[in-house]
Amino acid sequence: MAGTLREATDKNGLVRTIDWRDHHIEAIDQTKLPTEVVVLAISTVEDLVSAIQRLAIRGAPALGVAGALGAAMAVRGEPARRDRDLAALRSARPTAVNLAWGVDRALARLPEGADAVLAAALELLESDAARNRALGERGADWLARHVGGPVAVQTHCNAGALACVEWGTALGVVRSLHERGLLRHVYVDETRPLLQGARLTTWELAGLGIEHTLVVDSAGASVLARGFADAVVVGADRITANGDVVNKIGTYPLALAAARAGVPFLVAAPESTVDPSLASGADVEIEVRDGGEVLGGLPGTRTLNLAFDVTPADLVTAIVTEDRLVRPSAGERPA
Amino acid sequence: MAGTLREATDKNGLVRTIDWRDHHIEAIDQTKLPTEVVVLAISTVEDLVSAIQRLAIRGAPALGVAGALGAAMAVRGEPARRDRDLAALRSARPTAVNLAWGVDRALARLPEGADAVLAAALELLESDAARNRALGERGADWLARHVGGPVAVQTHCNAGALACVEWGTALGVVRSLHERGLLRHVYVDETRPLLQGARLTTWELAGLGIEHTLVVDSAGASVLARGFADAVVVGADRITANGDVVNKIGTYPLALAAARAGVPFLVAAPESTVDPSLASGADVEIEVRDGGEVLGGLPGTRTLNLAFDVTPADLVTAIVTEDRLVRPSAGERPA
Repeated sequence: MAGTLREATDKNGLVRTIDWRDHHIEAIDQTKLPTEVVVLAISTVEDLVSAIQRLAIRGAPALGVAGALGAAMAVRGEPARRDRDLAALRSARPTAVNLAWGVDRALARLPEGADAVLAAALELLESDAARNRALGERGADWLARHVGGPVAVQTHCNAGALACVEWGTALGVVRSLHERGLLRHVYVDETRPLLQGARLTTWELAGLGIEHTLVVDSAGASVLARGFADAVVVGADRITANGDVVNKIGTYPLALAAARAGVPFLVAAPESTVDPSLASGADVEIEVRDGGEVLGGLPGTRTLNLAFDVTPADLVTAIVTEDRLVRPSAGERPA
Repeated sequence: MAGTLREATDKNGLVRTIDWRDHHIEAIDQTKLPTEVVVLAISTVEDLVSAIQRLAIRGAPALGVAGALGAAMAVRGEPARRDRDLAALRSARPTAVNLAWGVDRALARLPEGADAVLAAALELLESDAARNRALGERGADWLARHVGGPVAVQTHCNAGALACVEWGTALGVVRSLHERGLLRHVYVDETRPLLQGARLTTWELAGLGIEHTLVVDSAGASVLARGFADAVVVGADRITANGDVVNKIGTYPLALAAARAGVPFLVAAPESTVDPSLASGADVEIEVRDGGEVLGGLPGTRTLNLAFDVTPADLVTAIVTEDRLVRPSAGERPA
């Protein structure tokens, strides 16, 4: 790979979020955006786990790649640490299935040696953008047909290049629409508590020259009820066999509002997000993060900081992956 | 009235939010809570309008009282300014009907002279708590019957003593349940952008010794879906003839989630909140506030800061006022 991450992100609109360079991971520190573009150099699994837990590296597809690269690091490290490192990496965050999937995909090549594990990880890294471009095109095709004209999109959190390697999932659909001249506007939720919408999605859209409007999370339902947006497009952290979608907290109320407004609710995610081993969203472990992320409260105030929610399959109009389109609300099952 | 507001708010759990003292209004500056309890002394309509616009005084019932007291100030002021003052006061914020209602209620006594206007305003001030206690009892009766056991409540924004004179509407219901030993827990939304839940509702509940948990706004739907709360109880800024409820942005998605979870959605508001002149929520002017209140974004980022939303009547299980209970979702109309 030529150039550093910083150089890559200077290219016109093409953000490289995570990369492999000289035996270490380079990644944009997403906690610092949009104020600063800081590139982290991560050379131990311990540092990688920490970066994932503090959300410096985040987004389901990026976590898949980070898992694979981390596995390659672990198998090159001291044998005594290997199992502990792999276990820590796999469970760094519980909800997105992609992390453990990435670890397992790379480790599957371990019988061929450590170089093969790295080769598998680099293959995931390099193929991520192509997968997301494919699902973005499929989603744009479907939305353009479904809406029948330029589309105004409501999105939530960040399912853009920053959540992947260099091409987004939900924002991949948005970019495909934009390239076709079929994008009318994008409404972005702040996405409390960590403001991935206000900090990351606006940064990406501004870089791409895409017109967008920021709203507080609880206004997303009104954006739909008032007819400002024609569709909701979001990513996913885990999709269960029945089509339930686990995604950033706040996705579920948008799905309720989309159903009430009669507009499509589209989930854009790679196949690696589908978890055929779990029957429904009720089986998914929902990460509860530190209550200090929630604003305010007093000494006697408790907090409950659920990081994800479950959107039931009947509210999901369609899921697009790099391979297919599935319509859970019409009874189709992803697995 | 004996004592200052500050002394009054020192009483055990009894917050006096707005008062009349020596020809001026005293009010807690709600922008400073919970860090500081600052009491404002307001002696001109201009200052009152400013306090209302920056939300130092807020909450539909409190705005009704502020409107009435402001009208009493205006009619005692220079005749040349009177009409301008009354117009500015009436339109200080457009969505809550109570503000103009308070102005009109006090002004109706103008033929009897300025003292009669003040007397009418003071009557509204003094009767506010009694009205809210009555509606709180009615709401608690209904919820206890409906839920059939101790009730965990999800609320939004602040419809407590701080939104009224000294006894809340939604939190009036909560206090009545608490007094009966029938309150299990209260879930409070942060209420972006101005954090009335995180700053004001937690402050009141902590003062009352009521156990509560703070969540981000977009988690309210999950609190209901996961069965943590048995009911949603909120206030209202305007209720139209058909039973549509206009309240703080974020109320509507909670109503959608309550309907989906099969739990009651209860609106607690005085009769002055009912506006028989408007057929439905579509007729209500929704205040759009300064975009600077929304977090983040970049130079190219627009904002849309809707301060209120509309919950359609079919999602409103019941409205309680000081006089009656109306069930819009069962086809009953408040006017």
